[in-house]
Amino acid sequence: MKLMNVKGTSDSLPKEELIKRRVVNTLTSTFEKFGYMPLDTTILCYYDLLASKYAGGSEILKEVYTLNDQGDRKLGLRYDLTVPFSKVISMNVNKNITLPLKRYEVGKVFRDGPVKTGRAREFYQCDVDVCGIEGTFIEAEMLSMTSLCYKKLGIDVYIEVNNRKLLEGFILAAGIDENIKNKVILSVDKLAKIGERGVKEELSSYDIEDEKLDKLFSYFKCTIEELDNLDITNNTFTEGKEEIKELFNYLNSLEITECKFTPYLARGLEIYTGTVFEVFDKKQRIMSAIGGGGRYDKIITNFIEDGNTYPAVGISFGIVPICEILKEEVNEALYDVLIVPMNTNIESLKLANSLRKEDIKVLIEMNNRKLKKVFESADKNNVPYVIVLGENEVNEGTIEIKDMKNKTTSKFNINDIEGMKEYINK
Amino acid sequence: MKLMNVKGTSDSLPKEELIKRRVVNTLTSTFEKFGYMPLDTTILCYYDLLASKYAGGSEILKEVYTLNDQGDRKLGLRYDLTVPFSKVISMNVNKNITLPLKRYEVGKVFRDGPVKTGRAREFYQCDVDVCGIEGTFIEAEMLSMTSLCYKKLGIDVYIEVNNRKLLEGFILAAGIDENIKNKVILSVDKLAKIGERGVKEELSSYDIEDEKLDKLFSYFKCTIEELDNLDITNNTFTEGKEEIKELFNYLNSLEITECKFTPYLARGLEIYTGTVFEVFDKKQRIMSAIGGGGRYDKIITNFIEDGNTYPAVGISFGIVPICEILKEEVNEALYDVLIVPMNTNIESLKLANSLRKEDIKVLIEMNNRKLKKVFESADKNNVPYVIVLGENEVNEGTIEIKDMKNKTTSKFNINDIEGMKEYINK
Repeated sequence: MKLMNVKGTSDSLPKEELIKRRVVNTLTSTFEKFGYMPLDTTILCYYDLLASKYAGGSEILKEVYTLNDQGDRKLGLRYDLTVPFSKVISMNVNKNITLPLKRYEVGKVFRDGPVKTGRAREFYQCDVDVCGIEGTFIEAEMLSMTSLCYKKLGIDVYIEVNNRKLLEGFILAAGIDENIKNKVILSVDKLAKIGERGVKEELSSYDIEDEKLDKLFSYFKCTIEELDNLDITNNTFTEGKEEIKELFNYLNSLEITECKFTPYLARGLEIYTGTVFEVFDKKQRIMSAIGGGGRYDKIITNFIEDGNTYPAVGISFGIVPICEILKEEVNEALYDVLIVPMNTNIESLKLANSLRKEDIKVLIEMNNRKLKKVFESADKNNVPYVIVLGENEVNEGTIEIKDMKNKTTSKFNINDIEGMKEYINK
Repeated sequence: MKLMNVKGTSDSLPKEELIKRRVVNTLTSTFEKFGYMPLDTTILCYYDLLASKYAGGSEILKEVYTLNDQGDRKLGLRYDLTVPFSKVISMNVNKNITLPLKRYEVGKVFRDGPVKTGRAREFYQCDVDVCGIEGTFIEAEMLSMTSLCYKKLGIDVYIEVNNRKLLEGFILAAGIDENIKNKVILSVDKLAKIGERGVKEELSSYDIEDEKLDKLFSYFKCTIEELDNLDITNNTFTEGKEEIKELFNYLNSLEITECKFTPYLARGLEIYTGTVFEVFDKKQRIMSAIGGGGRYDKIITNFIEDGNTYPAVGISFGIVPICEILKEEVNEALYDVLIVPMNTNIESLKLANSLRKEDIKVLIEMNNRKLKKVFESADKNNVPYVIVLGENEVNEGTIEIKDMKNKTTSKFNINDIEGMKEYINK
């Protein structure tokens, strides 16, 4: 049998996975500081749930992995974390949970679609959402959290922020037919990628007159302050304007200076109803967004359809691109100390356990490899300290710690765990 | 559409999930202190891989969820974490990884089998394994780690330890036909559950004479020291005896007193080749094992079949029963502080962010509920501190923190984050 992975899936090996674990732990502990709680939803779902009218849409539905269980029920693997979130709310609200619900979830999703760079068939998503709060107060908090998350990860970012009502208001004010609004938004969304000329060409193909296009693009050059000077009166624009002004008032007060008003930001087509934002790496190591989200007041409302409204705001953190960026920066040692026992198994285990109780990561060499090989592999793996524990040392009650970087050794009493700890953590 | 979960699957809601996260973080950070590295393997596998001759066996194969992708490849969902571990070794050894490989993995597995208490169709496993080290040195270290893990979780345990060679040696020495050895082991494994009488009855049905049974059961009453006095000469026994003596020599030196020699412990039928162990809750809140493992030298060797041997030892931590035990003990507050803004949104966000930077979990009330309601729900959720931030306080530059348990309030300068932090963490 040829052992291989399913196309579009891959295993994450220790070095890579260690980075992912640090990223996920940094993110989730930050989420919890903002009152977001962990949720873990099922991967297996009834196919009907995934296919429900207001879920991911027909494009995604084509990519759902489907299967039948032994009871011949038609099941599917979840393709995102929003449908499961909606399901949990619908099944538990006013029973096991109360709104507002602030939750995060990190988990695998599955899509049986074309495989290319950045698109796998089995991959992690990391979503943070709140359901049950309207307005910009929570949006400002979410952008605060987003800012803190990337700071904690050590990635300098800028965040493009817009409002979908504002963008729609621009389109109406430019005199463009409302019926092609969504197509226009989809084109405008490509502005960063294909430039003004590319977008204009695409829009011309929808028979939009040049002067309307010029008008639209002039709006896209506005600052927040200039919005008040525009001669636009439609309600969609006015609502959007008030929201974006309020939001930036919060952001400025909180000194979240990495947020930039980007009047043409659309962030995809259908689901967003107000504030939208996307996070970019300042150093441009990854060109596409490494996080993003916004307000989507209708998804859960339409999904549950119980007559109540379920306003929601959320952000997705791009675990895959974030790990990709940090991979280049982090070259963490896999452990702090390597102990090489020379007929001193018991003493080595004892020493290792004492150090481990002090939160030090210790590997014991157990395969009796030659010392030269052991030191070579310690070097290769960036292990900072090596202890060769011989019988003489044990009899003398001393141990020598070798600093692999400085090629120096230091001697300690074998019971002086505190001293070793200080030396190792220095 | 009726929203419901697939039979045998369930969502983990925030309170429950918070406990699981703490458990997983406690365990994995301990694993890393022993030099185990995280690994994350694919859930989707080729069906042939799961069905390979030496994988989980025909019983498990009946329970594999199968599906075809759009390219009509036959796939299955993984049913354990050992087959994926074997796959990763086979695909990467001497390329991206070198042996010994110490890894842990926490992930969901899927089985389309009968649903009952403790058996779900989609559930978490947490496996720690090392491949490439023979002998009791690593086994002693693994039991050290196991002991430390449960201590860190705050669960008092005892660990039953045995050796499969010893057990097989007993069976041979009792004069029982080697051909029914595995059936006998399976029966003996039920000793704790159905008692000596039950096991003897079952064994009698295989036509084993009473005197042989009596002999077998007399062996089961031995202490480690008494093993040397037994009049048994078969090699299997002798090997097993030497191994178990060596292992307990380590354990005694390391003062891992919770390990108990249990000569009848079998731990399932097929895979184990030497040391086996199972972990039990001393308080017996869960009667079945809450962890267990042992040496399995043939699984990966037979799986890869490249002419090399792949000795392995592993332990599975029962995430589900561990969370079940801790659920009763942990009643953690979901957050440390609730801030209720009274027309002070910006100041509340600022205060919250300052506290969050000090690692304090802060929720801001954003739905303008009545104060009475807010306090009621804070009480219900064990929130320890509440800050009602009014305009007067902001103007005065002070804030009052209400201690919900003692029903006292303390006043702080609005910039005295250090003081608040000390008060909240006290």
